[in-house]
Amino acid sequence: MPRQAGRSLRRLESHAKVTGTVEYVHNLELPGMLHGKIFRSTVPHARLARVDVAAARTAPGVEQVITGQDVLSIIPDPYYGPAFHDQPILALEKVRFAGEPVAIVLAADPYAAQAALDLIEVEYEELPAVYNEVEAALKGAPLVHDKLRPGSMFADLIHVRPRSGSNVHVDYRVRRGDVEEAFRASERVFEDTFHTPAVAAAPLEPIVTVAEPGGSGPLTIHSATQNPSFVRGELARLLGWPENRVRVRTAFLGGGFGGKQYIKLEALAAASTLLAQRPVKISLTMDEQFVTITRHASTIRMKTGVSADGRILARECEIWWNGGAYADIGPRVTQKAGFTSAGPYDIENVSIDSYAVYTNLPPAGALRGFGVPQVNWAHETQGDRIARELGMDPLEFRLKNLLRNGRPQASGTILQDSGTEEVTKEVASAMRWAEPLDCGTGTTRRGRGVALAIKAGVTPTTSVAIVTLAGDGSCTVYAGTVDVGQGSQTVLAQIAAEGLALRAEEVRVIHPDTDATPYDMGSVGSRSTFHMGLAIQGATEQVSRQLIEMAAPVLGADAADLELYDGSVVARGRGDAEISFRELMATRFGKNTGTLVGSGSFTASYDTPDPDTGQSDDVAVFWMIGAVGAEVTVDTETGKVMVQRLVNVADVGKAINPLLVSTQLSGGALLQFGYAMSEEMRFEEGQLVNSGLAQYKIPTMLDMPKSVEVVLVEVPHRNGPLGAKGMGETGTLAVSAAIGNAVFDALGVQVKELPLTPERVLRAIRAGAGRPLED
Amino acid sequence: MPRQAGRSLRRLESHAKVTGTVEYVHNLELPGMLHGKIFRSTVPHARLARVDVAAARTAPGVEQVITGQDVLSIIPDPYYGPAFHDQPILALEKVRFAGEPVAIVLAADPYAAQAALDLIEVEYEELPAVYNEVEAALKGAPLVHDKLRPGSMFADLIHVRPRSGSNVHVDYRVRRGDVEEAFRASERVFEDTFHTPAVAAAPLEPIVTVAEPGGSGPLTIHSATQNPSFVRGELARLLGWPENRVRVRTAFLGGGFGGKQYIKLEALAAASTLLAQRPVKISLTMDEQFVTITRHASTIRMKTGVSADGRILARECEIWWNGGAYADIGPRVTQKAGFTSAGPYDIENVSIDSYAVYTNLPPAGALRGFGVPQVNWAHETQGDRIARELGMDPLEFRLKNLLRNGRPQASGTILQDSGTEEVTKEVASAMRWAEPLDCGTGTTRRGRGVALAIKAGVTPTTSVAIVTLAGDGSCTVYAGTVDVGQGSQTVLAQIAAEGLALRAEEVRVIHPDTDATPYDMGSVGSRSTFHMGLAIQGATEQVSRQLIEMAAPVLGADAADLELYDGSVVARGRGDAEISFRELMATRFGKNTGTLVGSGSFTASYDTPDPDTGQSDDVAVFWMIGAVGAEVTVDTETGKVMVQRLVNVADVGKAINPLLVSTQLSGGALLQFGYAMSEEMRFEEGQLVNSGLAQYKIPTMLDMPKSVEVVLVEVPHRNGPLGAKGMGETGTLAVSAAIGNAVFDALGVQVKELPLTPERVLRAIRAGAGRPLED
Repeated sequence: MPRQAGRSLRRLESHAKVTGTVEYVHNLELPGMLHGKIFRSTVPHARLARVDVAAARTAPGVEQVITGQDVLSIIPDPYYGPAFHDQPILALEKVRFAGEPVAIVLAADPYAAQAALDLIEVEYEELPAVYNEVEAALKGAPLVHDKLRPGSMFADLIHVRPRSGSNVHVDYRVRRGDVEEAFRASERVFEDTFHTPAVAAAPLEPIVTVAEPGGSGPLTIHSATQNPSFVRGELARLLGWPENRVRVRTAFLGGGFGGKQYIKLEALAAASTLLAQRPVKISLTMDEQFVTITRHASTIRMKTGVSADGRILARECEIWWNGGAYADIGPRVTQKAGFTSAGPYDIENVSIDSYAVYTNLPPAGALRGFGVPQVNWAHETQGDRIARELGMDPLEFRLKNLLRNGRPQASGTILQDSGTEEVTKEVASAMRWAEPLDCGTGTTRRGRGVALAIKAGVTPTTSVAIVTLAGDGSCTVYAGTVDVGQGSQTVLAQIAAEGLALRAEEVRVIHPDTDATPYDMGSVGSRSTFHMGLAIQGATEQVSRQLIEMAAPVLGADAADLELYDGSVVARGRGDAEISFRELMATRFGKNTGTLVGSGSFTASYDTPDPDTGQSDDVAVFWMIGAVGAEVTVDTETGKVMVQRLVNVADVGKAINPLLVSTQLSGGALLQFGYAMSEEMRFEEGQLVNSGLAQYKIPTMLDMPKSVEVVLVEVPHRNGPLGAKGMGETGTLAVSAAIGNAVFDALGVQVKELPLTPERVLRAIRAGAGRPLED
Repeated sequence: MPRQAGRSLRRLESHAKVTGTVEYVHNLELPGMLHGKIFRSTVPHARLARVDVAAARTAPGVEQVITGQDVLSIIPDPYYGPAFHDQPILALEKVRFAGEPVAIVLAADPYAAQAALDLIEVEYEELPAVYNEVEAALKGAPLVHDKLRPGSMFADLIHVRPRSGSNVHVDYRVRRGDVEEAFRASERVFEDTFHTPAVAAAPLEPIVTVAEPGGSGPLTIHSATQNPSFVRGELARLLGWPENRVRVRTAFLGGGFGGKQYIKLEALAAASTLLAQRPVKISLTMDEQFVTITRHASTIRMKTGVSADGRILARECEIWWNGGAYADIGPRVTQKAGFTSAGPYDIENVSIDSYAVYTNLPPAGALRGFGVPQVNWAHETQGDRIARELGMDPLEFRLKNLLRNGRPQASGTILQDSGTEEVTKEVASAMRWAEPLDCGTGTTRRGRGVALAIKAGVTPTTSVAIVTLAGDGSCTVYAGTVDVGQGSQTVLAQIAAEGLALRAEEVRVIHPDTDATPYDMGSVGSRSTFHMGLAIQGATEQVSRQLIEMAAPVLGADAADLELYDGSVVARGRGDAEISFRELMATRFGKNTGTLVGSGSFTASYDTPDPDTGQSDDVAVFWMIGAVGAEVTVDTETGKVMVQRLVNVADVGKAINPLLVSTQLSGGALLQFGYAMSEEMRFEEGQLVNSGLAQYKIPTMLDMPKSVEVVLVEVPHRNGPLGAKGMGETGTLAVSAAIGNAVFDALGVQVKELPLTPERVLRAIRAGAGRPLED
């Protein structure tokens, strides 16, 4: 029987997915179900003078119309959010962004519900609004929120100082060494300001929730969510119920990318079903998905002092995160990207200020990388400018400053078990960096670039797993990990199979369902393989121990001499002495009866950063380390960039499923490729003007890199399951900068703002910086 | 906080039940669901010459028509059953009773499916049939089955000798002492033959199953079943799949009474959904329910030898069980009622032969009491005849022969922790037995009677439970116990609450779902409180131990000094030292996160009876002991019996919920009251002629006893959860005989056949036995 760890097994649900038989919440229909359609604010900031739903209530087919006032009758304090309780289920008194839900129409026919939206009349008293994150952080800017109330994940997870009376709701800082002194000692000091735009997650299954009121059973929420356990806790809190009266379950997700994190439609669906006492489905259109959650636009000021020989002596970062109108998980982005904004470099003197800022735009949250793709764009782009201006090879500059195991990261936490050197070496090798590149001629120029990345695994969080054997010895894994398409069910089956010496195909992994699967923090921050993998290992160890204890007397052997193999317990060195799991179950419970139960849990250790300095002995359960190489051609007449090669190198610790790890890395790279090249949410006076996939340009197959390569580096993590680390974001982080650096190499001009649209590149060329366009 | 054990808590789902919001499988609708309607054999025994479904297949709205041959394409060996694999999913080659499923029509519209049944043409080659159990057991009777194959529950659970080449498929015997010698030594020997008819379970929710084909997930069966775990195992066996690919779940059941035991529609629904690849619902009409499963008709020959002073010296029982065409759980009935057929009496010499007999009638199975109500009718009716003929008071006769703790039951197992004396005393007291009864005058005569009962708790079987605490400390119980209406969810919540010092209302009990709840043998044989109660106790002990271990360092206390109280761990004698479950969870997992998991299991010990003598050291996990007293009036002109008082005394060990225990006892008594007074399935040449509730007479409110009283006796069981014993059947067992004995007392004539219809009573009066009708 082959080892299960290291098998390039296809996703166990592959066949069902391509034949259209897997379950998605989007396809769920329930008898008597109503469809909810949301009336949204048409203005970015206003006091609600009047919300008149009387005409809509009497419209044909309409069952119910619910406003924020109606919600108050069952949820007196209807504000939710993971970090702050700032977002109302439906707007109360004020609206804070164009697109904010104000009312919901429920009808058996979704078209009837949609039609009735036109009958709702809202009178707004418009308020001054603010959209830019830097302007919003200034004193005197219009205030988006008057007061702040920390949410459930605030106190434990984000050690930050919220400011009241300001749009800056989190002001996270890292202080290490003495940057001022180090700048004075520096040979050269570089200062740049970088921008990244708001972008959309755009999963092909938009956010969807179906709620059932319960009866004698629990309130039941079927939701395309990445965090069923969090949703349960948050709904229980809103309702003032114990968690065991709320059930949240998912199916497969048609993508998530962070856009289905924490709580989205679930509170509105819960309120609707409880008021209507019928099942309610709310499924967003892609246009609505766009204004529901975005990735933060950011402005990053980065100042770096270097010695004459290219050592980075000091780095100062100031980051403004455009959080939109509601904080969502932005505070965690602010912290997490904050403390990694100095990059994977060994810098003695660091000063970071990372500001979460409210504006009158749609809320921003987590989107693959928790802000690290934004700060990576800054430090890796500036890195190439520094190298070029010092006359150094960019890779050599990076190697000289590289953060190595045993050295402290900016947060003070010592790096360990991380392949910073290995990924750098591998990207150089894959890019044939030592060989010169043909730079092209005429209007087609060629360039290449690399970028390195570091991100901390999500800490602290918890996963709990149960593993059972049925009477016939077949194995079931109860894990709350949501399979958003990344293949987690397959990898978790492999980890369980490895632990019980079964084949992964024999293991069944149950979909997340808080009525069946124990707590898991969610499919977020590349944590599932590591955290849930460890929880499952704990559970399989319990099952394995029980099996061996049961077998020892039957086989007349010492427990120490027994091991599991292919569905049996076998005595080492005694070929004939074995008993199958099925037979063992019969000895304990009776033939074909009983359930053997094991459980395990993993909570990452964590040392809360000092609020004044951000210093911590243990800020990351593991580090994600990646390197990206890009080779581009640029049409100097149009500014059009084509990526010829994209090489993605990631330290995955141990590839439990090399096939899935590789496709997840390239998938993550291509997501970020879109953000690097073309994606950008454009707002005019707070109104999104390129909503939906017709206007917002995600890459098509024709836009894709000509070649996408993945190189796996395996530096085992001492605590990881079979040595594995999370890697769901690793492939994403450094893509933009690698491409930008290749463009810089091709043109000699640098673009500091994403995406690298033809217009922006052409403008940079025409600004005339760098070498002349004509040879 | 009140103790949870002993609280007369209303059923937790009461409100939802009366407001119509609880879930029943009958109400389940799924998108794209087809309805299945069954074509049934119109003859009792025939070879199938031709099954022509061509016309039905092209009927309007019909999606698919499935025959036995079609089933073979996915299930090559489609025979099922708990004791024998004798029943085909759809008839193959032969039909063996009128009403046997031959084909199923699937259509989105159930009326279209029903209409298409008329287009199915079946050509039968009729075979000689046999209907009476005694005739069928004779050599030379037409054979219903040519061969026998033991089922999964056969080998372990029923130590019996199947015969081939005979309709007697189980021939169970008990031999104790020397009956022949003892009969010779007896002063008097009484011999009678008793009859009970086939009766129907008639739950107001008939059997219903909805199946979904799965896709990447499991085959899913939603079924009104009392045994989800058994159904899962049996379907996995039929399909040749591991159990983890089959999911079986239930909701609340609208009654069961044994009629939803083991496997009923589930295999047909599974085959249908897999062939159609769409969800399929099959819901029986009441007419169909009647031919799906019955309670065994029986013929019982009982011969008893007594000494001059009324000691029973020997008892010989011969019992023929009319099993119908398929064994179902009849073999277990044969065994279980077999070894208790000598009654709750201390008899040195016993000989029992209990025969399970195939006939060409609908299958018979378990129905509240596993055959004990039938044998109880025999021994308790004969008991009154013996007492009267010896000139003894019937109660005195019983007390003289009573089986007491420390003495062996007929099986050889020593009685212990059983309230035989207590229930006898209590029934005498409640009936004011010492006072004379006014016997009435004219055409209205009055009489009273008592009867005692014994039944073994179902052994051996297994229950497994999981108990969890969520991050907020709220508790969930995962138990496969089906709440058929008896209130198991409430009682199990009380047991869990008692174990964790919570209120029962705070505990959530999950509906049985093999994807969530671990193995349980099912809601059968009064086992749930005892078996599952013990499994839950094991699980709460694990949770409690973990809580105390977590709290000890936090409170700075010794674990030994800590206990749980009202959602907290408290230090004994230190009022201020306490920490809530919620806070404890936070210390271990992080605030509002994590799941604490405990599991427990219970497998009853069992000593398989010797096949030749039925002797066993341990045949019952506990004994159910009950006594019934009845007072009747009889109209001697019409034969109409009215029960004026029905007193039900039961040893419940410990009434964990006195309210539910009392209502379950009186519910069981009223079920049997119907069987005693009016219910009887009548067959003519194998055709049921009084199918459905219009013709088959269950009692109405006007027929009910004028007074129904319950007396609880609590003789704690040393191993029971909080001392409790099962009592779901106790109230049922002795009702018929108590009423019959009261009629005997009123009239001086004895009826030996159930039910006590006016016709039958009048015929007995007119036969002129006993005292003259006119004073």
